[in-house]
Amino acid sequence: MIDFYTYPGPNSRKAQIMLEEAGAEYTVRNVDITRGEQFAPGFLKISPNNKIPAIVDHTPAGPVAVFETAAILLYLAESSGRLLPTEPTARANTMAWLIWGTSSLGGALPQLHHFVDSPEKLPSAIERFTSDCVRMFKVQEKRLSEVEFLAGDYSVADIPSFCSTAGWLQRVKDLSNGALGDTPSTERWLKAVGKRAAVRKVMAG
Amino acid sequence: MIDFYTYPGPNSRKAQIMLEEAGAEYTVRNVDITRGEQFAPGFLKISPNNKIPAIVDHTPAGPVAVFETAAILLYLAESSGRLLPTEPTARANTMAWLIWGTSSLGGALPQLHHFVDSPEKLPSAIERFTSDCVRMFKVQEKRLSEVEFLAGDYSVADIPSFCSTAGWLQRVKDLSNGALGDTPSTERWLKAVGKRAAVRKVMAG
Ligand SMILES: N[C@@H](CCC(=O)N[C@@H](CS)C(=O)NCC(=O)O)C(=O)O
Ligand SMILES: N[C@@H](CCC(=O)N[C@@H](CS)C(=O)NCC(=O)O)C(=O)O
Repeated sequence: MIDFYTYPGPNSRKAQIMLEEAGAEYTVRNVDITRGEQFAPGFLKISPNNKIPAIVDHTPAGPVAVFETAAILLYLAESSGRLLPTEPTARANTMAWLIWGTSSLGGALPQLHHFVDSPEKLPSAIERFTSDCVRMFKVQEKRLSEVEFLAGDYSVADIPSFCSTAGWLQRVKDLSNGALGDTPSTERWLKAVGKRAAVRKVMAG
Repeated sequence: MIDFYTYPGPNSRKAQIMLEEAGAEYTVRNVDITRGEQFAPGFLKISPNNKIPAIVDHTPAGPVAVFETAAILLYLAESSGRLLPTEPTARANTMAWLIWGTSSLGGALPQLHHFVDSPEKLPSAIERFTSDCVRMFKVQEKRLSEVEFLAGDYSVADIPSFCSTAGWLQRVKDLSNGALGDTPSTERWLKAVGKRAAVRKVMAG
């Protein structure tokens, strides 16, 4: 049984999709980050960086706590034996695109979000993060024009980028004044990933 | 034999320290990012996100290319069997703190760098990234007051945070007007990590 510490939002969805893909039994534990519950001492023992998502896996050998979305995804993939190949090239590709999705694309989008939605408008900051997200959505489009899924076959690497792309692709297109262009391969991939039962369940919930 | 694609800077040092820790034989291949060499088609096959560091490991089964610092570190740790424990709790801790160092702390510092050193001064952007870095250096200080190294024993998780902290702790202290306070545990850990032969070699080079 896994305790899943969460609050509605895109990072939580990434972890929850992998919980579903792993076939894990889990209990949702809400951490209201709008009320500071992420700073409660009990929660900081699990997630010392005061962020959701986090999990505690109650294994026969004892509880295992994990924080950081990418680490949670890797933990669940390894412990379930699902969506993370062991063959070196496929594994390296999966690791690289997983990290790219959680930290490069997944690092820039929250900054874009912040600066675009901030009451104080800072054009150079908005432009900085818009152009980086445009660049990365182009990197992803190129990759998906060459392979079916980010690491070849469907894998844990598709999950974070799927959530980010589903939430942000159109908005970045609108902000970019045409600089991003068409993304047919990305749209094909969004549909394919969106058909997974685990993804459908979490995106609907 | 590993080809190590790099250009002097903090991310490259993280990868190079792990190459040394892994006891890998590697050849340094310079990619001059000030002259756009990261966009050369041959390099994009290795590092599709047009960033250094990247590696190609020429294994008996064929070449394995890896990009993204965290993925490179995990690949080298797994392939060498060094600095990444297999016991579930220790492994989960190592993964979580490695990702924290490369994407949370390691994601905010380059933004702080950009906004602090930009000719256009945007006080609210500087304040945003300063306060996040102050928060994270406090998270790290608290952790290191409880354990000797980030994941308990010295591991791959210490490498990215060590490079970031060595380069930025004092600067963030100066920017924070005392908000960060003293960091005795961090200083103890900087000294301990700094004594590793691999770390000394790369930091001196
Ligand atoms: N790098 C973290 C980021 C997680 C994150 O940003 N979580 C936000 C909600 S989406 C949060 O918990 N914020 C609460 C806070 O910052 O105090 C990860 O990938 O898990
Ligand atoms: N998320 C990447 C970031 C790497 C990165 O930012 N590399 C910089 C140099 S430190 C780079 O290659 N810049 C060239 C460019 O952006 O075109 C990682 O962790 O490896």
